[in-house]
Amino acid sequence: MFKKQSIFLSLILSVIAFKGFSQQSVPLSLKMKNVGFTFNLNAQGTPVYQISYGKNEAVKSSVLGFKLDQGISLAENFKLLKADSVTVDETWKPVWGEVAQIRNHYKQLTVHLVQQGQKSILLDIVFRIFEDGLGFRYEFPVQENLKSFVVKEELTAFNMTGDHKTFWIPADFDSNEYKYTSSPLSAIDARKWGLISSGTIEGNIPDQSAVQTPLMMKAANGLYINIHEAALIDYPSMQLHVDKSTFGLSSSLVPDARGNKAYMRTPFHTPWRTVIVSDKATDILSSKMILNLNEPSKIENTSWIKPMKFMGVWWEMQVGRTSWNYTDQMETLHGEGKYVPNGRHAANTENVKHYIDFASKNGIEGLLVEGWNKGWEEWTDDKEEKFDFVTPYPDFDVKAVSDYAKAKNVKMIMHNETGGSATSYERQMDTAFRFMNRYGYGSLKTGYVSGIVPRGEHHDGQWMVNHYIRSIKKAADHHVMIDIHEPTRPTGLHRTYPNFMASEAGRGNEWNFFSDGNPPEHETILPFTRLIGGPMDYTPGIFKLRDYAPGVPERQMHSTLAKQLALYITMYSPLQMAADIPENYSAHMDAFRFIQDVAVDWDDTRIVEAEPGEYITIARKAKGKNEWFLGAITNGEKRETVVKLDFLDKNQIYTATIYADGKDAEWKTNPENYQIKTIKVTAKSVLKLMLAPGGGAAVHFRLLTNPKL
Amino acid sequence: MFKKQSIFLSLILSVIAFKGFSQQSVPLSLKMKNVGFTFNLNAQGTPVYQISYGKNEAVKSSVLGFKLDQGISLAENFKLLKADSVTVDETWKPVWGEVAQIRNHYKQLTVHLVQQGQKSILLDIVFRIFEDGLGFRYEFPVQENLKSFVVKEELTAFNMTGDHKTFWIPADFDSNEYKYTSSPLSAIDARKWGLISSGTIEGNIPDQSAVQTPLMMKAANGLYINIHEAALIDYPSMQLHVDKSTFGLSSSLVPDARGNKAYMRTPFHTPWRTVIVSDKATDILSSKMILNLNEPSKIENTSWIKPMKFMGVWWEMQVGRTSWNYTDQMETLHGEGKYVPNGRHAANTENVKHYIDFASKNGIEGLLVEGWNKGWEEWTDDKEEKFDFVTPYPDFDVKAVSDYAKAKNVKMIMHNETGGSATSYERQMDTAFRFMNRYGYGSLKTGYVSGIVPRGEHHDGQWMVNHYIRSIKKAADHHVMIDIHEPTRPTGLHRTYPNFMASEAGRGNEWNFFSDGNPPEHETILPFTRLIGGPMDYTPGIFKLRDYAPGVPERQMHSTLAKQLALYITMYSPLQMAADIPENYSAHMDAFRFIQDVAVDWDDTRIVEAEPGEYITIARKAKGKNEWFLGAITNGEKRETVVKLDFLDKNQIYTATIYADGKDAEWKTNPENYQIKTIKVTAKSVLKLMLAPGGGAAVHFRLLTNPKL
Repeated sequence: MFKKQSIFLSLILSVIAFKGFSQQSVPLSLKMKNVGFTFNLNAQGTPVYQISYGKNEAVKSSVLGFKLDQGISLAENFKLLKADSVTVDETWKPVWGEVAQIRNHYKQLTVHLVQQGQKSILLDIVFRIFEDGLGFRYEFPVQENLKSFVVKEELTAFNMTGDHKTFWIPADFDSNEYKYTSSPLSAIDARKWGLISSGTIEGNIPDQSAVQTPLMMKAANGLYINIHEAALIDYPSMQLHVDKSTFGLSSSLVPDARGNKAYMRTPFHTPWRTVIVSDKATDILSSKMILNLNEPSKIENTSWIKPMKFMGVWWEMQVGRTSWNYTDQMETLHGEGKYVPNGRHAANTENVKHYIDFASKNGIEGLLVEGWNKGWEEWTDDKEEKFDFVTPYPDFDVKAVSDYAKAKNVKMIMHNETGGSATSYERQMDTAFRFMNRYGYGSLKTGYVSGIVPRGEHHDGQWMVNHYIRSIKKAADHHVMIDIHEPTRPTGLHRTYPNFMASEAGRGNEWNFFSDGNPPEHETILPFTRLIGGPMDYTPGIFKLRDYAPGVPERQMHSTLAKQLALYITMYSPLQMAADIPENYSAHMDAFRFIQDVAVDWDDTRIVEAEPGEYITIARKAKGKNEWFLGAITNGEKRETVVKLDFLDKNQIYTATIYADGKDAEWKTNPENYQIKTIKVTAKSVLKLMLAPGGGAAVHFRLLTNPKL
Repeated sequence: MFKKQSIFLSLILSVIAFKGFSQQSVPLSLKMKNVGFTFNLNAQGTPVYQISYGKNEAVKSSVLGFKLDQGISLAENFKLLKADSVTVDETWKPVWGEVAQIRNHYKQLTVHLVQQGQKSILLDIVFRIFEDGLGFRYEFPVQENLKSFVVKEELTAFNMTGDHKTFWIPADFDSNEYKYTSSPLSAIDARKWGLISSGTIEGNIPDQSAVQTPLMMKAANGLYINIHEAALIDYPSMQLHVDKSTFGLSSSLVPDARGNKAYMRTPFHTPWRTVIVSDKATDILSSKMILNLNEPSKIENTSWIKPMKFMGVWWEMQVGRTSWNYTDQMETLHGEGKYVPNGRHAANTENVKHYIDFASKNGIEGLLVEGWNKGWEEWTDDKEEKFDFVTPYPDFDVKAVSDYAKAKNVKMIMHNETGGSATSYERQMDTAFRFMNRYGYGSLKTGYVSGIVPRGEHHDGQWMVNHYIRSIKKAADHHVMIDIHEPTRPTGLHRTYPNFMASEAGRGNEWNFFSDGNPPEHETILPFTRLIGGPMDYTPGIFKLRDYAPGVPERQMHSTLAKQLALYITMYSPLQMAADIPENYSAHMDAFRFIQDVAVDWDDTRIVEAEPGEYITIARKAKGKNEWFLGAITNGEKRETVVKLDFLDKNQIYTATIYADGKDAEWKTNPENYQIKTIKVTAKSVLKLMLAPGGGAAVHFRLLTNPKL
């Protein structure tokens, strides 16, 4: 049982009089451990900042500012009115997470600027410096000369010191489902990727020299730098334009149908712009800066929010064995009203019960069913009314399924694919959530495949950012946990809305069916990029690694089976899918045991070792238990991982059940080769794990009941 | 009491074998009384049609067709597969209207065409010929080669025979609130008007040679031709591009944010394109063709739908005496949360009770209150969340007002101004209508001032057309009558949704405050243009005709007081406002008597005489009563109108109370000059009415209780 910990909270607030503040003079500097920061106004009165790490520069002097409508350029002629500061050191407990409690320790500097021109404009910039980086945001106070306005451009720059090695995907306004690649900044060229979103490259990736955040870079001097944003609310997502000659990055906001970026009203503040910096890659993965920059939970009663594992009537459609849609004869339906079943519809009552039986028998708590509701025949058409969110196909008995799941102690997970038609979904949302409540669906997966309606809006623009948050809030009102597919990249909002469990917003396991797949290094990059802002529903746990897709024998997972297990640890999510079909698990029940056992909520996490594009090893302690789990993955290279088990309790003996690649395992030719063994270990033990090319290892540490030292 | 009439309905359906149909040959011709029609395929296989009236050509041979996406051009290479025909003669009873029953008598020809190319495409065109014109629409049957598609252009043409005198307003995508002007077709130039909608002329009126429908024309040979559309559903509004050298008109559809016109799925049909034609102007006004082309009521129980007159807490804000908004200090609200009242807020409980008292005492059934709900301070800003549709300002007690109105037998009319943010309204609609039901609001005025959200969409595009219909349906679900301001132009949908009582969609009386006003001829053109598709909430009944607006003494009504009364008859609406404030009515209670007495629902209507831009005289018989009302208006010219009273029952004596312009009345210098007298008349009498420049006359005929002939 989970022993409830007392909440530890300390809060130190102090206004520090910086030297020279009474003279309102710049520059102003702050330091937290290795991270140093300076704010200045340059000769043109442009606000600039700079970040250092130890003796090295991390971000060179970089400008801050905006272009607004009404002819307002907030780019120069600023003066410092005053500056004030505060130091905060508090500890808070997330509702769920990688650790039981999080320290939020920062120094804050607020510079109050005025731009003098025809009309004076007030602009505050708030900087928070942490031991692992800097967060800052713009705040527009209430003022006479600036009320409602349009953001035409945000000018924020992040000037790099050199041609860093960069892990990037192109700046598509509507998709993040690209393979990560690494290259020097100077070699970034978004158009070398085929377009993934629906539309045109010109319309969706107009800037071929721009990339998505979180952007992971490694400098020649060994510094790791990660740029992203926190608390993205009522504002478009930030992309980064790359100047390939100067290595300057600059904010590029996703536009709306009219080419505008954001519609604002003072008082207003932007999301936080974040720069995580360290000389250790592991610090990037353990940083809690983005969570700390988000507001505390707005949901008071969180007792209904519970991490879980789930299966899905999903992969069988994904690989083409069955279908989401009920009929293949839409002309018959449109013409004569005849609903001719295709006989391949997966979400039928009988099949769903089969999944419920398997999940129930094997202790998997949740079951997602896709394709249960009307609309799957023509949902990628360019129309607005795509889905009915409460009307099942004729062969899916909502009541019977719901009752059966309840009797079998399995939690049904609702699926609302919108096909990108957010307007249609918003109109039906009240009805859809009442339906979920009526039939006991406590979780929801939404989806936004295809072009957005309102037409001309983008997945990552201000309108859709607000839409996703509306869906999260509406879900919270109905005590429903939410997992959003195809939204923009997360920015730590799961602190504020802890029912926002996970999202996709990246290239998941499914691409191993769609395409030539995700190369083995993909999963070693995702935690440094996509996962920086929040959990990803990556859908791990595919056991049938080859020959899963009828008619396309060349498609295969770029992974060994053992690596599929390791992903449950290395790809953090409080909702973890066991993505394969029951039959494929039945063939490997010894390995499936790890999926059954692995926790989804944690008291502690140790990033044992990590290098983006190469390897990641993480150990996590299960919530409220003296049990640890470890996952280690590698890229396409074979690797020996040596893990000191010093995270285990001293003076205790543990059993370690090791799920490892077999001797001859290799992702392409022999992925199913794995071995399982159980040994006794202590905190002094050192584990050597051999990871095959594209392989991994998963370990389950349990306290031995009667330890005899 | 209204004696319920038995429903007279006769329906004759017969398939007529046209000569030559078995050979699938064209041309095909039909004739109804004076109206003749021919369909043909020209040498290129392009469908063409032609309309004649008597011996004159009304519409020269004109093409039909489309440009779709997927590279499909439906402009030529068509062949006739078959043609079939039917004759219909039925009579139906509107829930409310200008007459008690309507004859729907037409011959229908359906041509089934196939375009042979790489992929053969099926297209049907349905023509209905009436005694007063032609309606036709395109129907896309279910077919293998055309499923979902985008309409890029509709090619429908209406080729005129000459440089007709035309009554037109410019083809703004977002507004119809222009002064009508008349000019030859060759002189149409939309840009001579200042832009009225928010946006730019380039964005909102890109085609300076285009005009809105209904378009009223008069040919040199005396033919009156009116072009519009009927049953506009799931399609953008049609504008007409004018070729000023050939006098050819062609369909120009309002685009969406992406420049597309409509998103469709077969089976699908367009709205009806309508051409009303006659050698008598009065026939244009009495035509029921557009209503007949709409579907019968989809609302089964219509007992809750009741025409009425209403007053409004409105004009006092409109003229600037009081305000919609509660505070003038938004910076205080945004900054400190302090809600400082401006002391000018009209929709306060006390003031509303004052209106309720007046309405109750004087038998005006309804009361509209604008500005009662939060959001009026910054509602024209370019933001999405503008209004809260259920939260009143602090000085408006919804419950108290609702109870007071009920006790005084006055029906409260809800007001939901959206500021154009349809997305925000759609999200709140469920809540807003539940609120109306809770507080007993049976009617609703909505509004769409300012730019549309979804951004990039237009008031008259497919998305908004669908939105208006969603609002009508939602209102019907909640038994609420609806009056929509700033929608697209109506197309007779009030037959199908009889809770859709009225709309604005034109330049109402209010412009006499906003601007240099509506010239005296404006109201003589509106019935030939804006009102062709449905009732207009024109807001007549202003009694204080000058000096109503503080600080702008030059503003005045372009009307005498007597003309304001006449508008209750000449501007048909089942919702008629008494738009002035109680104090201004109190100064002329003798004239106000007409507004109290005038009916809003009718058993019969006679268009006595009419000429667009010059004069209109209409007599109407009150629903279920032996009472007639007559309205006569003129333009800026003085005029003597001679009316034979042969519409009255023979062998009966009536009293006629005549509200006429005074001897020296003139709209500019002496508008308040009126005279009221009561005389006895019979069906043999002839009334001579002197209409002042900008003047009019209103007459109330009542059966004398004890007639002694």
